[in-house]
Amino acid sequence: MTEPLPVTDRSRLRRLHERGHFDRETINAILDAQPMCHVGYVRDGKPYVTPTMQWREGNHVYWHGSSASRALRSETQAEVCLTVSILDGLVLARSGMHHSLNTRSVMLYGTAFKVEDPADKLQKLGNFVNHLYPGRYEMLRPDHAQDLKATTVLGMEITEGAAKIRTGGPSDDAEDYALPIWAGVIPIRMEVGDPIPDPRNLDGVEMPAHVRDFRYGG
Amino acid sequence: MTEPLPVTDRSRLRRLHERGHFDRETINAILDAQPMCHVGYVRDGKPYVTPTMQWREGNHVYWHGSSASRALRSETQAEVCLTVSILDGLVLARSGMHHSLNTRSVMLYGTAFKVEDPADKLQKLGNFVNHLYPGRYEMLRPDHAQDLKATTVLGMEITEGAAKIRTGGPSDDAEDYALPIWAGVIPIRMEVGDPIPDPRNLDGVEMPAHVRDFRYGG
Ligand SMILES: Cc1cc2nc3c(=O)[nH]c(=O)nc-3n(C[C@H](O)[C@H](O)[C@H](O)COP(=O)(O)OP(=O)(O)OC[C@H]3O[C@@H](n4cnc5c(N)ncnc54)[C@H](O)[C@@H]3O)c2cc1C
Ligand SMILES: Cc1cc2nc3c(=O)[nH]c(=O)nc-3n(C[C@H](O)[C@H](O)[C@H](O)COP(=O)(O)OP(=O)(O)OC[C@H]3O[C@@H](n4cnc5c(N)ncnc54)[C@H](O)[C@@H]3O)c2cc1C
Ligand code: HEM
Ligand code: HEM
Repeated sequence: MTEPLPVTDRSRLRRLHERGHFDRETINAILDAQPMCHVGYVRDGKPYVTPTMQWREGNHVYWHGSSASRALRSETQAEVCLTVSILDGLVLARSGMHHSLNTRSVMLYGTAFKVEDPADKLQKLGNFVNHLYPGRYEMLRPDHAQDLKATTVLGMEITEGAAKIRTGGPSDDAEDYALPIWAGVIPIRMEVGDPIPDPRNLDGVEMPAHVRDFRYGG
Repeated sequence: MTEPLPVTDRSRLRRLHERGHFDRETINAILDAQPMCHVGYVRDGKPYVTPTMQWREGNHVYWHGSSASRALRSETQAEVCLTVSILDGLVLARSGMHHSLNTRSVMLYGTAFKVEDPADKLQKLGNFVNHLYPGRYEMLRPDHAQDLKATTVLGMEITEGAAKIRTGGPSDDAEDYALPIWAGVIPIRMEVGDPIPDPRNLDGVEMPAHVRDFRYGG
């Protein structure tokens, strides 16, 4: 499936719609660049927004947590909105109103399902670990049966949603460019610090490449 | 008001409750360290999660947007959940299940109100700009009446919610410490890059201190 997502009543951008994107390449690139997401669900008619890690496999997005989690349970009982956002920069303009942000974000709508098949679930969890840290899963102590029982993996097909992107410098009112006010962009990015080895690592255990060369969001 | 938030049925942590905090100091510090939030609202029974900037004044949290925004309109018509998250590090353990994240997050519940009084609204928007960039608002082209009309400011009293914090290294099963597997933490932070002046800045306009010394989250 490579056709773009349909523009629905729910997903259509009404504000600054020229910033909207519905093609899968753009949506997938944002999902892959930011593993953090915020999942919204409704319980007793009220909204909850739970920060969660997501990973993508083809046209599906997945996330995981405790099998006893209220969030995960609620997320399979009704629709969710899964939102991924990246802050690329702060935009400073010559008037208050034209201040803005350079951002990339995705909002996805749908119904989550539980990955029930144990072999499938195991594979998905391995993919999650390896998405963040290539090759790590095979180096770990194999999962105990009770680890897997304690874990729920949810999935959702990417069928409805939108991406929104802003880039570039400030866009001021024409007459304000004559004012002696500093305008511009302050870039922001997620910075990876020096890894901190666990003091209990065994002697001679070396830092693996997936840690040494770790890049946030691939 | 300095007493902690009440532990309600909605806000009480069921998973890993020892990571929960209800005192205002902890909650406020997280709100102040991360201006980005995700606001969840319900429309036609379905959840939406909108990335938004928030700022705190005392026991209130505020956000802004277009007066025509569907999100902002919906957010005053029913309860919202406003979530702020900070990723401080990735935690690598010796088994898949004990992988984790070092994070600070806040979930707040309540009903948003519109800041209706024009003078109050103007002041709040000035506070927003100056929270991010100390002293900037007074240097800007003063807001036009139509800028303010186009802008809605929402507020919410901080009365119900929780913070959740994880810090430190991996916590593995006792017997797994004998395994020759690298474990540890990869620190993450929001990094500020070199400011990019707008090519249309007037000659002789210097970069102000609030840009030169900009620190994300104060
Ligand atoms: C980090 C960050 C901070 C932001 N801060 C603010 C802020 O402080 N104030 C503000 O007004 N706006 C902010 N935005 C933009 C905000 O997320 C909304 O796009 C905007 O508020 C318009 O919302 P709306 O519901 O009125 O839009 P509408 O255009 O009515 O939304 C209709 C549909 O468009 C799509 N859509 C809308 N917004 C997005 C999005 N961000 N990503 C993907 N799809 C989207 C969705 O499918 C949505 O249901 C921020 C965005 C990011 C990423
Ligand atoms: C960046 C980030 C990524 C995360 N990734 C994952 C993940 O991939 N998988 C996963 O299972 N969990 C993840 N978490 C933790 C997740 O947000 C929840 O805390 C956890 O899933 C338990 O949810 P629950 O609804 O079952 O918890 P419960 O304990 O049942 O929640 C009850 C109440 O506790 C409070 N609460 C719960 N979680 C939080 C929170 N994070 N911040 C503030 N208050 C809270 C709320 O008031 C909530 O309504 C992540 C957290 C952060 C900050
Ligand atoms: C530094 C402070 C500010 C920041 C970081 C900021 C950021 C933003 C962002 C990210 C948006 C969303 C744009 C989009 O939908 O893509 C927005 C919208 C908006 N902001 Fe601000 N803003 C700031 C200050 C202000 C001030 C002071 C005003 C009013 C005087 C204002 C008025 C508006 C309006 C009216 C919109 C809606 C635009 C539209 O949908 O057409 N903003 N702002
Ligand atoms: C690198 C990959 C992983 C990361 C980044 C990660 C991250 C997290 C985070 C942040 C939480 C929430 C903890 C909290 O509530 O404070 C969590 C919970 C959980 N994770 Fe993972 N995880 C990963 C891999 C796995 C794997 C492979 C499994 C199973 C084999 C697993 C099983 C669980 C379980 C069962 C919980 C619930 C803990 C509880 O609430 O008691 N995780 N994970």
